[in-house]
Amino acid sequence: MTASALLAQIEGVGRDAARGGYSRHVFDSAEAELREWFTDRAARRGLDVQTDRNGNLWAWWGTPGPDAVVTGSHLDSVPGGGAFDGPLGVVSALDALASLKAGGFTPARPLAVVVFAEEEGGRFGVPCLGSRLLTGAIDPDRARRLTDPDGVTFADAARRAGHDPERFGPDPETLGNIGHFIELHVEQGRGLIDQNSAVAVGSTVIAHGRWRFSFRGQGNHAGATRIGDRSDPMLPAAATVAAARRLASGMPDARATVGRLVPNPGGTNVIASTVDLWLDARVPGEALTPALVADITGAAREAAAEEGCELTVTEESYSGTVTFDSGLRDRMSGLLGGVPALPTGAGHDAAILAAHVPAGMLYVRNPTGISHAPEEFAEPSDVDEGGRALAAVLRDLAR
Amino acid sequence: MTASALLAQIEGVGRDAARGGYSRHVFDSAEAELREWFTDRAARRGLDVQTDRNGNLWAWWGTPGPDAVVTGSHLDSVPGGGAFDGPLGVVSALDALASLKAGGFTPARPLAVVVFAEEEGGRFGVPCLGSRLLTGAIDPDRARRLTDPDGVTFADAARRAGHDPERFGPDPETLGNIGHFIELHVEQGRGLIDQNSAVAVGSTVIAHGRWRFSFRGQGNHAGATRIGDRSDPMLPAAATVAAARRLASGMPDARATVGRLVPNPGGTNVIASTVDLWLDARVPGEALTPALVADITGAAREAAAEEGCELTVTEESYSGTVTFDSGLRDRMSGLLGGVPALPTGAGHDAAILAAHVPAGMLYVRNPTGISHAPEEFAEPSDVDEGGRALAAVLRDLAR
Repeated sequence: MTASALLAQIEGVGRDAARGGYSRHVFDSAEAELREWFTDRAARRGLDVQTDRNGNLWAWWGTPGPDAVVTGSHLDSVPGGGAFDGPLGVVSALDALASLKAGGFTPARPLAVVVFAEEEGGRFGVPCLGSRLLTGAIDPDRARRLTDPDGVTFADAARRAGHDPERFGPDPETLGNIGHFIELHVEQGRGLIDQNSAVAVGSTVIAHGRWRFSFRGQGNHAGATRIGDRSDPMLPAAATVAAARRLASGMPDARATVGRLVPNPGGTNVIASTVDLWLDARVPGEALTPALVADITGAAREAAAEEGCELTVTEESYSGTVTFDSGLRDRMSGLLGGVPALPTGAGHDAAILAAHVPAGMLYVRNPTGISHAPEEFAEPSDVDEGGRALAAVLRDLAR
Repeated sequence: MTASALLAQIEGVGRDAARGGYSRHVFDSAEAELREWFTDRAARRGLDVQTDRNGNLWAWWGTPGPDAVVTGSHLDSVPGGGAFDGPLGVVSALDALASLKAGGFTPARPLAVVVFAEEEGGRFGVPCLGSRLLTGAIDPDRARRLTDPDGVTFADAARRAGHDPERFGPDPETLGNIGHFIELHVEQGRGLIDQNSAVAVGSTVIAHGRWRFSFRGQGNHAGATRIGDRSDPMLPAAATVAAARRLASGMPDARATVGRLVPNPGGTNVIASTVDLWLDARVPGEALTPALVADITGAAREAAAEEGCELTVTEESYSGTVTFDSGLRDRMSGLLGGVPALPTGAGHDAAILAAHVPAGMLYVRNPTGISHAPEEFAEPSDVDEGGRALAAVLRDLAR
């Protein structure tokens, strides 16, 4: 069964009729269905499935132990996301292991497929939460206290899904088993569109983070309150959106985005009392992302003061520039006939693991250049080529 | 039982822990509880309770018939609203009728208390929906098709609450019974703060309306998409918020507000594919509100075009300037010892009815000057004075 056929099996799970695309969030019913599906499909391929103490799923070929060759990705999505971001890496991994087995390959070390939890941060705000917990990149107390938009904590959601949140935290044993980590992922920009290759290897991940801007003003009646009497937090929030674009445009290759903005109470005839917005900022080069955020914060503070509003800025996550292991990168590229190496502005669990183990990425061409949206795509022939590339890399690393 | 004591009976119904204040929306469980409470309290006062074909509640003293003196307001709220906007007029009406009865008054014509449905438009977007349907100010087909934020139609919500939406529409018999309509309401601005009076009569309601601005861009990855490749609808949405403020500030006493703004899909690491925002605009003087909205729309179109986004603007409701019946206004003011007459920027059911019957309003002082927010307030002594004023007006009209 090819990766494309596996993807087709889950095409009905977690569709979001309101937003379009898929909403599959950690510990929700769609994600639970995908975990069950993965467990079943891995077992059918003769893999032993285990859940680690942080809610990440592992399917082992061979006895879990040191120097394992691990591949995988995630099954959760952004709200209204595409079908490929995450699942493509998981199904390609299952397919690659199955084809190695079918080809009679005898690995010299254990192989595993991993499904990381909450890679997108689509429910609890912090991306790569499963791999951050595993590697100790986030304090487990902080993780347990993270809340979703309905106010449910990560700990409570985990408990309801059958996990023990008290066990969340650094897992040196599991981490210590990983000899190499390879993540296959759909390309999320236009990097492969104009290249004569269906596949690329990852070179770097731009530094990136998320900041929450909370503006507090005075809720009031939209008709009865004169303009001069207002402290309307929507005004500095809008000014911050504009400032983020203006300031990012002034830095080479910088990206700044406000995709989530929530006025409270959110009534048409009501001046908001608070507005929360989330800034996603990414700038190539060390220290430039915090510098951009500081500039945007300055503009936001000025706009808030002008309107008589208060502003609180909270860093929700930050990851510095990651350069993937250059030996592994070159080894993979050579093995695959000299495919190109691509930098990316997208974060991945492989970039979290890269601080601890040799990690690398394979990207599969996306003809739309669009990701985190229903238009995200990969041609079936490119998906198959990605799967073959992954199998070749795993075979090379595990022999 | 005083109006304040009646208000205290419902202080626990429909509290909104997330937003603060109250969220009581038409046909939701809190509003259903309030309808039941009203029905019970009206029956205890010897009033006959009926629901008209548009879901408005009527409590009659005497046989329903022409030339009735009708008072009342609404029990629904904006999201996260205050305790007084709506309920104060209802409890004052119940209290006034009870005190007239207790005082041995024998009315020469029927009296009634009415509770209008969906006055705020807090769930289905169109304010004064119950009185608009009753008077034929909105096409019932359009009303039935209105949807709430979850996509539930007004017709379906009504059906689930036990109403027959096929009967929605103009109700000349019920309207024909209204000889005079008086609505008591908490003041929603600072109009009475500096006057030596707890009560005012209404003079005019500023022209006002609601327009939905739907920006469509291209959803995409917040990290992998270069600034130059973006069509991010959040940018023109933010520019529209700024333009609304700037343009309204240039017109005397104009108000323009964006209190509701919804990006879709609303992920932190996702460039939105669409952003919907609702503009509430109100300008004294005929034709000036549409002129302001046209200017704001022009700025929005320019910003949308600059970002490669599409824009659709839909008028959700519009009401021209209303001048309350001057004879009734002066009669009430004189009866109450010459209390002031106040214009308002807030819409009311009384302003919808004013096109058909002599209608007037009584405002009760609000020491915070804040409304549509938890800080909305009226002193118990002012509430009592409002109730006495309403009783005096009803006695005068019904004798």
